Amino acid sequence: MSDATKRAPVVEQVPEQTTTRLSVYLRCLERLHAAGVPAVSSAALAECCGLNGAIIRKDLAYFGEFGVRGVGYHVPALRQHLRQILGLDRRSAVVILGAGRLGSALAAYRGFRDDGFEVVALFDTDPSRIGSSTRDGIPVCALDDLRAVVERQGVVIAIIAVPAGAAQEVLDLVVACGVRAVLNFSPGGLRVPAGVKVKNVDLTLSLESLSFFLAAGRGD
Amino acid sequence: MSDATKRAPVVEQVPEQTTTRLSVYLRCLERLHAAGVPAVSSAALAECCGLNGAIIRKDLAYFGEFGVRGVGYHVPALRQHLRQILGLDRRSAVVILGAGRLGSALAAYRGFRDDGFEVVALFDTDPSRIGSSTRDGIPVCALDDLRAVVERQGVVIAIIAVPAGAAQEVLDLVVACGVRAVLNFSPGGLRVPAGVKVKNVDLTLSLESLSFFLAAGRGD
Repeated sequence: MSDATKRAPVVEQVPEQTTTRLSVYLRCLERLHAAGVPAVSSAALAECCGLNGAIIRKDLAYFGEFGVRGVGYHVPALRQHLRQILGLDRRSAVVILGAGRLGSALAAYRGFRDDGFEVVALFDTDPSRIGSSTRDGIPVCALDDLRAVVERQGVVIAIIAVPAGAAQEVLDLVVACGVRAVLNFSPGGLRVPAGVKVKNVDLTLSLESLSFFLAAGRGD
Repeated sequence: MSDATKRAPVVEQVPEQTTTRLSVYLRCLERLHAAGVPAVSSAALAECCGLNGAIIRKDLAYFGEFGVRGVGYHVPALRQHLRQILGLDRRSAVVILGAGRLGSALAAYRGFRDDGFEVVALFDTDPSRIGSSTRDGIPVCALDDLRAVVERQGVVIAIIAVPAGAAQEVLDLVVACGVRAVLNFSPGGLRVPAGVKVKNVDLTLSLESLSFFLAAGRGD
């Protein structure tokens, strides 16, 4: 590590907004790296990300000293650091609970695979789905097989795409099988056990926010 | 309106977090209403939403005086006010750009329909998809037909579910057709014209945030 002093972050102190922005920085760096750009000033990286330089410096400061005076950031090094910080320097096995249309669409979502997230199986309770597989060859398994698949494949992330009424039961089940990180697409609140991280993606909330904007005549 | 003084909000002052919480309050009220509960104290509504009462009072204060001393909130009235504020008291026509797996899954997403959001058409550039329809009978149209569909059906919201490389072009097109509210599933930044509201749903960002949590050993 020639140009950076990396430190172990006190992760409890890292705001959620910062971790989201790290992903945004990484995407800009991936583009710059692909274009063969060796270094980028803090101002240029900020513009590429649509943010200001002060925020970038503050966010990165949680993890170490990455800038070089008069140079800015070395693109390949900072890219590599961010991939490590975000845990993208390894394969992460993912299971999807619910093999309906949403679950199937997520299984096929290319962005996940490009990022090292590998969907290894879907799970469902519908006998007509169990035993089938997606167009990409990902098997649809019975819920009874969840623990075995999690253990055998080293699954670290579960995506919940079941109807709202089944979500809590499914969350409790994946946690009981040892999964500690969950992306939840079911609407409504879930009771989340300590030590488990749940990110909620609530599509209806997003549409309602747009609807509020339209109802209020904002932007007229 | 017997128990509330409703006022027109200065919408620019309403934080995005508040509009999101309005949706959460509405869901709790829908549950209470379905259970036949006529009134709820601010504390009980707060507990139902997993928030504190002070936030609820502050959020609602943007829109009027809804509480009644000694009673709390009248459930049917507050529910109706929130539905109006969020623009859910009417049908909203929605188009989906991109009829791949994600677009098709979104077209079938039941939560949208229950909330008054009606997907009236999908659009694609793939000739093998154009002219077909989803299992629910929603037609897949050519992009050339977008303007006509938007005008005929009074479309107010567009959902972008196309590959990243096509997203900006598609956003510019829907805006040119008069749509001012967009839910975007494509990763990467979009240039958003003034007076247009874009909500980004970035599934990879959410997974990366979980990955960060795991990489940092948070919760161990």
